[in-house]
Amino acid sequence: MANAKRIVVVGGSAAGPKAAAKARRLDEEAEITIIQKSPELSMASCGYPYYVGGFFDDRNALLASPTGVVRDPIYFINAKRIVAQTECEVLSIDRQEKTVRCRHMPTSEEKVLPYDRLVLATGSLPKIPPVPGCDLDGITTLQSMQDADYLRKIRDEGKIRKAVVVGGGLIGIETCEALSLAGIEITTVELLPQLLTFLDWEIAQLVENYLRSKAVNVFTGNGVAAFLGQEGKLTGVKLANGTELPCELAVIAIGVMPNSTLASQAGLQVGSTGGIVVNEFMQTSDPDIYAAGDCVEIPNRITGQPVHAPYGDLANLEGRVAGENAVLGNSVTFPGTIGTGICKIFDYAAGTTGLSEHAARAAGMDDIVTVINASPDKPGFMDAKLLVTKLVAQASTGRILGAQCVGPGAVAKQIAQWSMSIQGELTVEDLVNSDLPYAPSFSLAIDHFVATAHIMQNKLKGRMKGISAAEVKKKVESDKPPFVLDVRGPDEFEAMRLGIGETLVPVGALRKRLDEMPQDKDTEIVTYCKISLRGYEAALVLEANGWKNVRVMEGGIMAWPYAREK
Amino acid sequence: MANAKRIVVVGGSAAGPKAAAKARRLDEEAEITIIQKSPELSMASCGYPYYVGGFFDDRNALLASPTGVVRDPIYFINAKRIVAQTECEVLSIDRQEKTVRCRHMPTSEEKVLPYDRLVLATGSLPKIPPVPGCDLDGITTLQSMQDADYLRKIRDEGKIRKAVVVGGGLIGIETCEALSLAGIEITTVELLPQLLTFLDWEIAQLVENYLRSKAVNVFTGNGVAAFLGQEGKLTGVKLANGTELPCELAVIAIGVMPNSTLASQAGLQVGSTGGIVVNEFMQTSDPDIYAAGDCVEIPNRITGQPVHAPYGDLANLEGRVAGENAVLGNSVTFPGTIGTGICKIFDYAAGTTGLSEHAARAAGMDDIVTVINASPDKPGFMDAKLLVTKLVAQASTGRILGAQCVGPGAVAKQIAQWSMSIQGELTVEDLVNSDLPYAPSFSLAIDHFVATAHIMQNKLKGRMKGISAAEVKKKVESDKPPFVLDVRGPDEFEAMRLGIGETLVPVGALRKRLDEMPQDKDTEIVTYCKISLRGYEAALVLEANGWKNVRVMEGGIMAWPYAREK
Repeated sequence: MANAKRIVVVGGSAAGPKAAAKARRLDEEAEITIIQKSPELSMASCGYPYYVGGFFDDRNALLASPTGVVRDPIYFINAKRIVAQTECEVLSIDRQEKTVRCRHMPTSEEKVLPYDRLVLATGSLPKIPPVPGCDLDGITTLQSMQDADYLRKIRDEGKIRKAVVVGGGLIGIETCEALSLAGIEITTVELLPQLLTFLDWEIAQLVENYLRSKAVNVFTGNGVAAFLGQEGKLTGVKLANGTELPCELAVIAIGVMPNSTLASQAGLQVGSTGGIVVNEFMQTSDPDIYAAGDCVEIPNRITGQPVHAPYGDLANLEGRVAGENAVLGNSVTFPGTIGTGICKIFDYAAGTTGLSEHAARAAGMDDIVTVINASPDKPGFMDAKLLVTKLVAQASTGRILGAQCVGPGAVAKQIAQWSMSIQGELTVEDLVNSDLPYAPSFSLAIDHFVATAHIMQNKLKGRMKGISAAEVKKKVESDKPPFVLDVRGPDEFEAMRLGIGETLVPVGALRKRLDEMPQDKDTEIVTYCKISLRGYEAALVLEANGWKNVRVMEGGIMAWPYAREK
Repeated sequence: MANAKRIVVVGGSAAGPKAAAKARRLDEEAEITIIQKSPELSMASCGYPYYVGGFFDDRNALLASPTGVVRDPIYFINAKRIVAQTECEVLSIDRQEKTVRCRHMPTSEEKVLPYDRLVLATGSLPKIPPVPGCDLDGITTLQSMQDADYLRKIRDEGKIRKAVVVGGGLIGIETCEALSLAGIEITTVELLPQLLTFLDWEIAQLVENYLRSKAVNVFTGNGVAAFLGQEGKLTGVKLANGTELPCELAVIAIGVMPNSTLASQAGLQVGSTGGIVVNEFMQTSDPDIYAAGDCVEIPNRITGQPVHAPYGDLANLEGRVAGENAVLGNSVTFPGTIGTGICKIFDYAAGTTGLSEHAARAAGMDDIVTVINASPDKPGFMDAKLLVTKLVAQASTGRILGAQCVGPGAVAKQIAQWSMSIQGELTVEDLVNSDLPYAPSFSLAIDHFVATAHIMQNKLKGRMKGISAAEVKKKVESDKPPFVLDVRGPDEFEAMRLGIGETLVPVGALRKRLDEMPQDKDTEIVTYCKISLRGYEAALVLEANGWKNVRVMEGGIMAWPYAREK
């Protein structure tokens, strides 16, 4: 049709098809074209590790609509009247002429497509470490359908015995699980001092301890120096500290960077993160060009700073906004991210929303207070599983800034609750009486989330004087160690204990055994129990009896990130 | 100690012990006494159905702290220095003298206890229908530990074959599951036209259909006329419509009423719901008497109206506030409830938060709009399970008023998200770009919650013209049935279909088969698919091609509450 708007979308994974589909729903007349470099469209790329890990066997499930129809060009033309050109690379954008030049890769045929509005959804590219040997056979990323096919084949063949996963972020950790489930012995190597840098160190350490318990070897604070090989084939990974890890497979998962080359070559503004700069309408510095997904940078809604947030959910939401504005003109906005993420690791999960303590401090925030809470997700009689949460709040206002949660329990629900609290700009006082869905199958009567808010409230009111496990460790190893008081029962002490010089006095006996406490009431005392509720009660008893320097070790033994005596 | 504050707490289940424990944490000197009528303390009463159903066998699990210590008087005195007097009934309150008179039931010994502050946590009493035969052997409630013991014994003996559960509310439904798991054939009888009245009818109907699929017989709109018996033993239940249901066991679960007799006899103000009136400090009309838990009425935070909300989580939160104010003077407040609740039914859950459509209308609200969304909780390749949500929002502002969610999927997380949205007073526009924890193990890239907000946004913008299944049913049975268009694939149609005179044209073929549509462009057309995303796309195609009267059946086949052809 002569007056139909021409929308060209570059990229056919998540943000691109979403923008195209949204544009179609709002404008039945528009001529909409998706140009996609790879042979597949609408790949559920977050599902690759689960395909590799054997959670399902049908490769098409990664490419299908909810009703099982593979989203190929025929699907797009029939169901949505969208032309999808696969295996087609966009070479350049002519912003004056409002055209894109592209090349059909199998035939090398080039053509020029005119657009009224262009949507860039060029995604991200995996980072590759600048070390020798990266081109050896047996080294891959897990970024494309082809990577997934390669690793799935390795699983199915069952020949490889040892693999190294380079990078301890979300994808690295998920890959770890996938390859472990394929029966491969895994070593994870992370350059930074911890896995999952969206977590604070002591929380990440709990994940690391769990991974080790699943027979995954973990090296942190140790980068890859070289990939070693023979006859072009990978034989091992050499670490910065000299350690050599023999392996037949290495998966590089040290993160991704925005694929913004096409945009920057066209003169569009690219930001400090490497992502294409867009305004709240997902519009680039050229008003006729929108961008969405892993190729852009967006504001963190808490700090206001631009971030690269390559997550599948955000890509879809951004694509939806870009698609609508591309056909209707600027009408809807995307506010940015609060930094929510989650990953599964065997029967454990690790999630975050908002700012970690280190992210908040790095953003120049000092008016912050944190607590750690460890407690079950459900009553003991309903197959309870542990949750450990670190909450970060603004000290002066009590506003929630961030929460991290890990454990075998229902982590996703906890993070979802914190996420909505942050988006509602709620404070600790708003949350202490939260009305959440309670039944024994789903939560404790006082949900872990609410209990965490209670502990934070007690801390903000000065009732609970907390101390982190890291501080306790430092103190007990110093010249003047504090008096450390474990207030659990003798059976519990027998089954599990820290072994840091602690004295055992069960909380139920404490009032009668105050004479066993240090007689100098100024002595520093640290109390704890399994999760530190009893530790808190013990501290209150001691304070009421005149001890002036009592602190509760937050999260108790369950949040202790170091090795225990037993 | 001479100046120690004397706190007396009446009631030892949830709110009472919580108030006492909170008071102790804030005042080590106070003399705190709990008076409890039953032999047990701190019973996890919400766990009774799971004990009866055999989810666990250790009765003590219902009475134990998280570390497995039974919370008996010795526990209370040792761990918390709280005197707990069990099997002790409070007979009266003398507000002038500030004393309570109580009677130790085993010995009939009476004594008078002075108080500085009194906390009433007298709980609720089960309602009993005013029909003949209620005293027959074989009739019970599931309100006390003794009831739980009685029903558990029935499970363990395995002699009873048929039971009737009277009442289709939360406890009734949970009891249904528990007794089914005990191998007993169950019939549920509900006086009202639907189960679970916190749900709107069409959502409750999905629960009813599910219950039937689990071989539970359900009678709605049908009360009990009499319990029938021989020689003092129950032999059957006679319904209002004359039906007689033979059975050896009947469980009465038609709800509870506040146990406020002690309070009203003492001249304290009791409200229209029968609950003790308290202010935001949980303080009764006597400033020295606080009350908390199932015996009080509290405000609904959305309507402002007083409600009786007998939930274990609220009891704990109210007790915490009452306990703090009782020792420190009025310092913390309890804002009320938004009406959040959930229950499990076999592998299905039903939850609510905020107002249902009928509750909103009953509260005089007319400025409302609703949508129903049906979609999986996760990607198909990750063992996706269905969720069906009905969302209620204020039409003029988009503010979220309530949400109901049912299905085998992760209902609790959905309800938690809506609950926090309501508590944050968020609008649909605030939610369409929610940053939630996404990974394939936990949600779709566009979570069901966000998708529901998207559909509501489309409806508020006039893009989606929805119609409920109930309206469709009425219309297809009328003299002028609409043209009903199923836009799924032929395979799907073969496997499952409504059979209400629909025409099948897959959405992918619709643009080419417009000539099969009614040629009068004013004809009323109803489109749908499995969940109605394709139904929405089809409606947009028809509208773009000139049809003026097209509506999408919300939630598609998955939310159809009536019988299907197949």
